Amino acid sequence: MDPSAFLSDRARGVRQSAVRDVFDLAMSPGLVSLAGGNPWLDDLPLEELGRVADELVSRQGHLSLQYGAGQGTAELRDAACSVMAADGIEGADPELVVVTPGSQAGIDTAARMLGNPGDVVVVEDPTFVGALNTFNTWQLDAVTTPTDEEGLIPAFLRQTLQRLRAEGRRVAFLYTIPSYANPSGALMPAARRDEVARICREEGVLIVEDNPYGQLGFEDAPVPPIAAEHRDQVIYLGTASKIFSPGVRIGWALVPPALLREFYLSAESAYICPSVPSQMLATAFLTRFDWQGHVARCAVEYARRCDALVDSMEESLDPRIMFARPGGGFFVWARMPDGIDTLPLMHTAAEAGVVFVPGAAFTPDVGPNPHFRLAFSFVAPEVLREGMRRLAPVLNAAL
Amino acid sequence: MDPSAFLSDRARGVRQSAVRDVFDLAMSPGLVSLAGGNPWLDDLPLEELGRVADELVSRQGHLSLQYGAGQGTAELRDAACSVMAADGIEGADPELVVVTPGSQAGIDTAARMLGNPGDVVVVEDPTFVGALNTFNTWQLDAVTTPTDEEGLIPAFLRQTLQRLRAEGRRVAFLYTIPSYANPSGALMPAARRDEVARICREEGVLIVEDNPYGQLGFEDAPVPPIAAEHRDQVIYLGTASKIFSPGVRIGWALVPPALLREFYLSAESAYICPSVPSQMLATAFLTRFDWQGHVARCAVEYARRCDALVDSMEESLDPRIMFARPGGGFFVWARMPDGIDTLPLMHTAAEAGVVFVPGAAFTPDVGPNPHFRLAFSFVAPEVLREGMRRLAPVLNAAL
Repeated sequence: MDPSAFLSDRARGVRQSAVRDVFDLAMSPGLVSLAGGNPWLDDLPLEELGRVADELVSRQGHLSLQYGAGQGTAELRDAACSVMAADGIEGADPELVVVTPGSQAGIDTAARMLGNPGDVVVVEDPTFVGALNTFNTWQLDAVTTPTDEEGLIPAFLRQTLQRLRAEGRRVAFLYTIPSYANPSGALMPAARRDEVARICREEGVLIVEDNPYGQLGFEDAPVPPIAAEHRDQVIYLGTASKIFSPGVRIGWALVPPALLREFYLSAESAYICPSVPSQMLATAFLTRFDWQGHVARCAVEYARRCDALVDSMEESLDPRIMFARPGGGFFVWARMPDGIDTLPLMHTAAEAGVVFVPGAAFTPDVGPNPHFRLAFSFVAPEVLREGMRRLAPVLNAAL
Repeated sequence: MDPSAFLSDRARGVRQSAVRDVFDLAMSPGLVSLAGGNPWLDDLPLEELGRVADELVSRQGHLSLQYGAGQGTAELRDAACSVMAADGIEGADPELVVVTPGSQAGIDTAARMLGNPGDVVVVEDPTFVGALNTFNTWQLDAVTTPTDEEGLIPAFLRQTLQRLRAEGRRVAFLYTIPSYANPSGALMPAARRDEVARICREEGVLIVEDNPYGQLGFEDAPVPPIAAEHRDQVIYLGTASKIFSPGVRIGWALVPPALLREFYLSAESAYICPSVPSQMLATAFLTRFDWQGHVARCAVEYARRCDALVDSMEESLDPRIMFARPGGGFFVWARMPDGIDTLPLMHTAAEAGVVFVPGAAFTPDVGPNPHFRLAFSFVAPEVLREGMRRLAPVLNAAL
């Protein structure tokens, strides 16, 4: 019996993509990884969090080790509302919050509950590779719409939606990361957010707004999410991954009332509930610690790392390689001249002791792709500079 | 804009079923809940586990709070192999183990990677409600095959598979809980397991074997899982939920080599990785504590609770209500005379201060259902007796 004969079409569709190969490569000792978007954790109060972890198991074990509710604990849903308030969503109702085991699971649940096989999800070009994988799994057709340095371009978005409507396609939703997008780093200004919301409303398209990086601007205060003013047309996804810990796998969704029940039922059918000790640890961090001070210190450190990387890039890369200094987030998005595909360069770079993610990972469109993404979030400045010393000759030689 | 207009067909298909209503009901104070299969946690060494939790955050926070690998930690995959050895699966290769955030997520991943919309999953009648929800989500058609007190009936299974083949249906897999099944409590003998495996092999059908209760026999040693002798045709699902904690949401899959990569890629696209602190806490419990002593003490307690419930049932229920004393697990499965539907009785019982799960929850087949499930796992003997004092008049009056 050959079990692989039993694979579903959707399993065959999952991309063991460029990016996945890179993450395997990045584990090799001695390599400088500019691939993964891991957060910096050195500022966390680990001793104090350890005491919290002790307490939530030793004193509250009958709660923390037992089954929890599919919607998540009331305490964490309250804490999520505080985080969203800092993002710019005032007065979110904790009854409309569903805790998820990370926002990847939130994307998965949204796709599960909104998309029929063959439907379209409209995505930024480029967009988050993890979202593309999920849409692929659900047999949704990711259709790109162009972006610039301020994210989605409204006029093109309208054209894309109108074209899809003319073609009789059902659009399940628009998936967007308006703040310091992965991978582009783009920050969508407030006026453009309103315009995007208006276009989607006029075209009858729901929005899934993913906001992992909104509070990680290097200088600017957060731009309020689209959900802040357009709550009935947005499923908003927040996460503790970049402001606290990705290991706990805690995110949340703020859901329009008409979709709440279906959201948590879909979630329960996937995993019953998120880890309860993880929920309680995240709750403690967001209620008993100065989490906003931590986030502010993180942003300073990320800015320092970003500067180290961008300065090295400016010093060492051929001027035909283009990139912008992002205003926040974890990534620098760069572009080789047309006609150069960065996918094969990934292997040359790995031989030179550095890994990055080629642009092909961030788009459903196939074919050679001149872009690449460099992550600075997890790498100390001196190591970022060493990484560029290794990477620049590879990239420059490809011109 | 009415967001509910955007729901997918699969979201509409998720059952806010009988069982879900019951779990909501069961939260009311003063009610005796014979509904949920929560494990007994009183025997856990909470003080010591608290110290472990402290340590894994305060000393190993850079590991426990950071992203983990999609396949799970090597340490937990090793520990899972020890648990599987105690189940009767000797020499499992940790490289073929994928840690999942609970075995519900394992069922979900199996369905995701093996089933195309419209395919069939063959299930026991009755079967686990959570699995039915997942199959529904993936637009898989759950088709029942008859069982007796020893689980799946091989001759009927062969007929079912042959009929489906004759009808041109693609069978994604057989889903089975051979040991102390939820809800029936049935234990499939070793010879029948071999026969089921042989039939599936001959008919070219993969097996998803779910084994949460295998070590919770009241008197008998575990019967080795189907996967023990038929590893290439089985995705085996284990879990820490019933031998340690359901709150940590830790399970695992032992996967045939040909399906390994697709399994963890599908899992990653759903949730990236299971909670890392949860994985580390479960690992510690399974390596630094006498977990088998804990499981043995749990089995003694569950036997005591089962006896209290069954004795009360024998004393108070009309003899036309049929049930068997299970040999392990969490549940007593019972049956009213034909023609009586237990779904409306659930509400009468709730008014009398007790909740149970009506049989309709455990089958994809619609229509009146005379069965009901009583869970004894989480309820102390004196409370179980009080529950039956409330429930028996309701049931007897319905005859």
